[in-house]
Amino acid sequence: MSTLDALLPAYLSDLLGDAEIAAEIDGLAQLAAMLRVEAALAAAQAEVGALPAQAARAIEAAAARLAARIDPADLAEATARDGVPVPALVALLREEAGAAAPAVHSGATSQDVVDTAWALCLKPALAILDGRLLRIGDALAALAAAHKATPMAARTRTQQAVPTRFGLAAAQWFAPFAAHRAALRDAGARACILSLGGAAGTQAAFGPTARAVEEAMARRLDLGVAELPWHSRREGGLALGAALAGAAASCGKIAQDLLLLARTEVGEVGFTDAGGSSAMPHKANPVAAEAALALARHAGALQAALHQAAMPADARDGAAWAQEWLAFAPLLLAVGACLARTERMLETLEVRPARMRANLVAFGSPTLAEAAGRALAATMAPDSADALLRRALAEAAASGDALSVVLKRLAPEAAAAAVDWAALDDPVGQAGEADAMIARALAAWAASR
Amino acid sequence: MSTLDALLPAYLSDLLGDAEIAAEIDGLAQLAAMLRVEAALAAAQAEVGALPAQAARAIEAAAARLAARIDPADLAEATARDGVPVPALVALLREEAGAAAPAVHSGATSQDVVDTAWALCLKPALAILDGRLLRIGDALAALAAAHKATPMAARTRTQQAVPTRFGLAAAQWFAPFAAHRAALRDAGARACILSLGGAAGTQAAFGPTARAVEEAMARRLDLGVAELPWHSRREGGLALGAALAGAAASCGKIAQDLLLLARTEVGEVGFTDAGGSSAMPHKANPVAAEAALALARHAGALQAALHQAAMPADARDGAAWAQEWLAFAPLLLAVGACLARTERMLETLEVRPARMRANLVAFGSPTLAEAAGRALAATMAPDSADALLRRALAEAAASGDALSVVLKRLAPEAAAAAVDWAALDDPVGQAGEADAMIARALAAWAASR
Amino acid sequence: MSTLDALLPAYLSDLLGDAEIAAEIDGLAQLAAMLRVEAALAAAQAEVGALPAQAARAIEAAAARLAARIDPADLAEATARDGVPVPALVALLREEAGAAAPAVHSGATSQDVVDTAWALCLKPALAILDGRLLRIGDALAALAAAHKATPMAARTRTQQAVPTRFGLAAAQWFAPFAAHRAALRDAGARACILSLGGAAGTQAAFGPTARAVEEAMARRLDLGVAELPWHSRREGGLALGAALAGAAASCGKIAQDLLLLARTEVGEVGFTDAGGSSAMPHKANPVAAEAALALARHAGALQAALHQAAMPADARDGAAWAQEWLAFAPLLLAVGACLARTERMLETLEVRPARMRANLVAFGSPTLAEAAGRALAATMAPDSADALLRRALAEAAASGDALSVVLKRLAPEAAAAAVDWAALDDPVGQAGEADAMIARALAAWAASR
Amino acid sequence: MSTLDALLPAYLSDLLGDAEIAAEIDGLAQLAAMLRVEAALAAAQAEVGALPAQAARAIEAAAARLAARIDPADLAEATARDGVPVPALVALLREEAGAAAPAVHSGATSQDVVDTAWALCLKPALAILDGRLLRIGDALAALAAAHKATPMAARTRTQQAVPTRFGLAAAQWFAPFAAHRAALRDAGARACILSLGGAAGTQAAFGPTARAVEEAMARRLDLGVAELPWHSRREGGLALGAALAGAAASCGKIAQDLLLLARTEVGEVGFTDAGGSSAMPHKANPVAAEAALALARHAGALQAALHQAAMPADARDGAAWAQEWLAFAPLLLAVGACLARTERMLETLEVRPARMRANLVAFGSPTLAEAAGRALAATMAPDSADALLRRALAEAAASGDALSVVLKRLAPEAAAAAVDWAALDDPVGQAGEADAMIARALAAWAASR
Repeated sequence: MSTLDALLPAYLSDLLGDAEIAAEIDGLAQLAAMLRVEAALAAAQAEVGALPAQAARAIEAAAARLAARIDPADLAEATARDGVPVPALVALLREEAGAAAPAVHSGATSQDVVDTAWALCLKPALAILDGRLLRIGDALAALAAAHKATPMAARTRTQQAVPTRFGLAAAQWFAPFAAHRAALRDAGARACILSLGGAAGTQAAFGPTARAVEEAMARRLDLGVAELPWHSRREGGLALGAALAGAAASCGKIAQDLLLLARTEVGEVGFTDAGGSSAMPHKANPVAAEAALALARHAGALQAALHQAAMPADARDGAAWAQEWLAFAPLLLAVGACLARTERMLETLEVRPARMRANLVAFGSPTLAEAAGRALAATMAPDSADALLRRALAEAAASGDALSVVLKRLAPEAAAAAVDWAALDDPVGQAGEADAMIARALAAWAASR
Repeated sequence: MSTLDALLPAYLSDLLGDAEIAAEIDGLAQLAAMLRVEAALAAAQAEVGALPAQAARAIEAAAARLAARIDPADLAEATARDGVPVPALVALLREEAGAAAPAVHSGATSQDVVDTAWALCLKPALAILDGRLLRIGDALAALAAAHKATPMAARTRTQQAVPTRFGLAAAQWFAPFAAHRAALRDAGARACILSLGGAAGTQAAFGPTARAVEEAMARRLDLGVAELPWHSRREGGLALGAALAGAAASCGKIAQDLLLLARTEVGEVGFTDAGGSSAMPHKANPVAAEAALALARHAGALQAALHQAAMPADARDGAAWAQEWLAFAPLLLAVGACLARTERMLETLEVRPARMRANLVAFGSPTLAEAAGRALAATMAPDSADALLRRALAEAAASGDALSVVLKRLAPEAAAAAVDWAALDDPVGQAGEADAMIARALAAWAASR
Repeated sequence: MSTLDALLPAYLSDLLGDAEIAAEIDGLAQLAAMLRVEAALAAAQAEVGALPAQAARAIEAAAARLAARIDPADLAEATARDGVPVPALVALLREEAGAAAPAVHSGATSQDVVDTAWALCLKPALAILDGRLLRIGDALAALAAAHKATPMAARTRTQQAVPTRFGLAAAQWFAPFAAHRAALRDAGARACILSLGGAAGTQAAFGPTARAVEEAMARRLDLGVAELPWHSRREGGLALGAALAGAAASCGKIAQDLLLLARTEVGEVGFTDAGGSSAMPHKANPVAAEAALALARHAGALQAALHQAAMPADARDGAAWAQEWLAFAPLLLAVGACLARTERMLETLEVRPARMRANLVAFGSPTLAEAAGRALAATMAPDSADALLRRALAEAAASGDALSVVLKRLAPEAAAAAVDWAALDDPVGQAGEADAMIARALAAWAASR
Repeated sequence: MSTLDALLPAYLSDLLGDAEIAAEIDGLAQLAAMLRVEAALAAAQAEVGALPAQAARAIEAAAARLAARIDPADLAEATARDGVPVPALVALLREEAGAAAPAVHSGATSQDVVDTAWALCLKPALAILDGRLLRIGDALAALAAAHKATPMAARTRTQQAVPTRFGLAAAQWFAPFAAHRAALRDAGARACILSLGGAAGTQAAFGPTARAVEEAMARRLDLGVAELPWHSRREGGLALGAALAGAAASCGKIAQDLLLLARTEVGEVGFTDAGGSSAMPHKANPVAAEAALALARHAGALQAALHQAAMPADARDGAAWAQEWLAFAPLLLAVGACLARTERMLETLEVRPARMRANLVAFGSPTLAEAAGRALAATMAPDSADALLRRALAEAAASGDALSVVLKRLAPEAAAAAVDWAALDDPVGQAGEADAMIARALAAWAASR
């Protein structure tokens, strides 16, 4: 218990953990899945005539009984000795299976059982993540639709750049999620496959029925079948890790943007459940957004660990495999928690259109510069227009006059140009093609659901 | 020149570099691509009537002239000031374009030009990598076919485990490459898209013709079009990085296996071009395999850097973008070099079937244990069989007697069992379903080509 | 419980976890430490006259009572809301403290309490790690002393190179440990310091007694005092992480070497407690070494996460801080487990001098080449000597003749040289300055203890 | 040339590169250093009588002549074959050395030459970095001194928290630099040591003079001597990498803070050389700060790569060594560039005290809450004070009234408390112990110079 509560203390479990994913992949879930694998192996062997049906039924029943009472901690000592829990688990299952004992685990190796059990645990976990991605996308799509006309300053390289719409920012946020869902589905399908290589991937112990056993077993467990055993090919798990980390990165981007918009001096968003401070009663800390960002970054470090684990040596590699254990579950949980905190962050998001408009107006003259530059470009050389504009911006900042007023004062010839000067002075009115873009993004999202 | 020759000294360029990929993405190639982007922008604007055709032609000609004489180093100072080379490049292009100057770069922003130029450079680079993946897969498939009956010990967790075929190891090596090619193609298609968001992603400067310009420009450059500008969404590049790193990891696995097989005491493979030592005339160092492994590992670290860069703030983020520059080209080059060294390693690979057989025979009794255990299991309880086998293995090791001889001596009742004892003593004859597996893997590879 | 048992299932806790370190840093230990911090704060304030002594005593007693009954899980919900457990913990402590409630947590902020509590937990954890480093160094020193004359082939770039002594390899293994102990001590001293910045690092709530409170509190908790509050400076933790990861890397190197020496075909070491296989009775898997290597690699990925966390924004940064929580405890546990598995690996190590000698003799002619080259260099030009030697090595390998015999046959003039040909044929007799080196290394280790 | 200009295009070399460091470590510098190593080896051997003085002089002269004309690219092909440039370099040097040819490289191995040459190149590079750290610390110390009384809002978790002084923020920034300088010095001294292990670390070829040669050579090259050859112990380089990355992280923190302070809506700092935009004439992009932050983050990824390289196998490991080459120079250059950009960022920093004060006043009521809470705590229970304060803050925000006015209105009994209400309404006047802290930090920095 101590090691576990040290990796992530229980008091942090709702902030940085993910109880829903954890329930699908924790020690108990994994051991139960391993026992399902042993039962399915026996059943498949019975199906192809390699085992008496009675033995298979006895093993299934024994596996179910054992799953109901096993405690992961009981296998700790044996796992430290053998490097895998399977030898000890098989011994317990044989004890439970009585006369069917010799038929237990027949032809399989530890890695077959552990890897297949992981595939079984992954499936519901990935379904949960898919649901979260869908809800995040929907929430952002609703935000984009609701704010398709809400003026806001677009910031580039930390500076107000040109006017945009808050809805366009939201559209940018959800735009990657259809691809993330597809990537997770594809990578999940490639990773959720049966492992049945036997001792060293030759299936020697299964004899000519090997493929038939594999197919029957995969059908029973609702998993895919690989061309070849994959004990020592981990490209599937690595690709799944990349899909997971990629989804988290897109959440991290949203969290980071919202943290910037929520800064006191910007104040364009807030959070209804902002966290309290032990020292400052007024503080409203953007806790969910901070957690989502931290988890998104952490996912990248764990994915890098998975990369190293994806180069196992030989037909099976104990060190690389252990490194995968060290990295994969934490990655899955970090991504799960990241998505859950992102959902929370969006549920409690408070958008403040008035402040968005106020900031745009207060600092907005410069954001007109691009449009003014385009207008001037029709009447003079780019270099002259640029120089004029820089001077005008400086004077407008100093005097508080509208940019158009200063420009016309500085360049009477420009005043004669066929330019809609009033529009140029209105940061709020300009948003380029934001409307069309938001509509396209919403349509694409709807089509992907 | 100094910074460049310091990142990877020229003397290392054939060992750890990749001249072929570099030629597609180096500074000159990027600037040339940027100039193509500016030309295509003008041409697309002319196509939709936003620009006189004459101006577009003048810009195209000017871009071509400038590309022919530009030196990347000349832009270093301005890039350090502006954070991007584009303002200075546009100034040079305007100078070159004469009367068409005002029409240059109209409506675009620096990031549009740089990101689109990267997409242009990526396409041929990815085609080169695809060719390498294909050749590596073919070479390994040929190896698998040639050695489908070559006996070798499968090692698991560093120990000889059961007999296998060298062809099955080779099949495991190429099995992931069809998926890597598909992943690179898909990720490449998603990453090689036009960027044309304008100042902050609203396309304001293009007005209602924005989408038409985008489509015309993408057609001219043979790139995809995004739903939305992607200045601040980098999930495409991150996914491409993951596909690249994943392919490198599969090469790293092969290199690592070959390095183990090439160890003096194993000696089952060698390399015809092994490297010389400055101190030891006899040394035959597996240089290409070492380089491939080092590059595969390095790719994982760079992919982790890319993960951080994939969470840019705001509508455009100078720091995250610069971090992408720091990581992406090195990643592409590391993966390119990794594939090239893998090709070299396979071209110079010397397989030694006699040594494989000798090692299997010399250390092979234990590798029969799994088969013997299966045979015994037909005649006694698993625990008894297991205990008997452990004792027999120890006695066989001590006495040098064949495992079957010892077993029959220790358990006369077992001797009566209907077991093909001679076959059990022959490590060379056993390889489970290796034949069928190799055939399946070869068929799948052929189908994917 | 689920999240915890999912990060590292209980069945893996003895293989990849570290119960001893965990007991010092788990959720309960951290909350107890936080309560000690609150008590020490009150006591220190009483000491400088900022609080009635009675209130301080009441808080100390309340903290002790609360520590005895608190359950980390009870704070999960509040921590998810506030981003830190402290507001809820302070509320509980105030409730417990009765009339002294207003004096609880006076002037401090959450981060003061959490960071100081971490420092308190770290101290015993680092002492445990230091003990392990010492024992590993001692075990390796004993190995080096015992095998200072045990001949073994030195391998470079995977090939047998020249004869060496196994004791020299062991000396190389322990050589870094004195520096690791010193680095951990120094970094630990820099990291185990009091945090008492108050709301945002200005100590405003403490008034002019701030420094006195800080010093009294640090003395009571036996921690160092910083020049300045360090809420947003994490260089100390980052340096400690680097020292931890560095120590793990040195263990990883040993584990990797032993895994290579333990390979079936090399067989120069074994492990008395090697792990069993579920499929192969003969397997003796080097489980502790595999785990040590996996953990050492994993530590590097977590250290990279810590690097990101070491760039917090502003006066306090919730995202960077949470990322530190996600990475630091797992790093400490991974390094702890790595050291523990390294100890186990060395305790169960079985050195096989006969096999070392046999491998050297069997493959040893080439390892004489460097010495032969030196001898020939006295009688002919380097190029001629080199060419002669390459030819002789090839003939010796083909014919089985001793290298000296072949050399004398090929170059009768060389035979006349004043060379000790017999010595050149004896790989076992040569080990350069291994003796002196081992002695130096042992003396340095002894001096550092 | 192509590979080099692809890793970091020349146009980016002033933004993300470091010409000064590069000049110390580029290919030419490394080859020149290798030749110095060969010359020093010969001289040292002559000094101990193992070589005629004349041969040593001839080798020194030949090395100097060769260094003057060698081109790194000329060694690329041979390095790709041998995995190191040394065999080819030694061949060239022998050719140049005429009759002294047999004495060239006597007893050494390639790794001795390459590792020692790196140590030689590192020394001036580290001196350059130390100078930058000193200048950065001085610049920040001057900033802290100049702004010790400049009021600014401290932000915690993105929100204005309490009033502070800009000088205190600056003090926090430079506080780690004394430790970074010390860490670089220490790690540099450990890393800048001679390597002279010979073929596989036994110094066999040197015979009993080995230690004397080592010491003479180290003295000539002004490097340290190791207890033992360190071909396969890389803890020194890893620790140096950690010291480098740690210094970069502290720069990244400063850059990040300044990027936040420079945001349009905050505007408390600016940069006099801010970068231009190709689309927006008004943009003043904080280019140097963005680059410093990107480089600081990148350094962490490269340090993670170095961690993997620090677990080399055997007595020498070609793959791990190559991975070190791939990571170390880029890390050194990234850190160098990070420090250089940090210097530039500080040189061009424009502090805006008026805006700092204005932001504090505009959003400042909440920042008084902590102080008000302390004041109220003297007159009522913490919970009541807290509730009162939250209500008062909401009313103050809604009405625009000063916090004290609202508080007195809501709680007339509080009004009677002996509280300096006027001071509580003045965010500008409060800064806790900032003065004393800044003074302590300045004194510590001065003492460390």
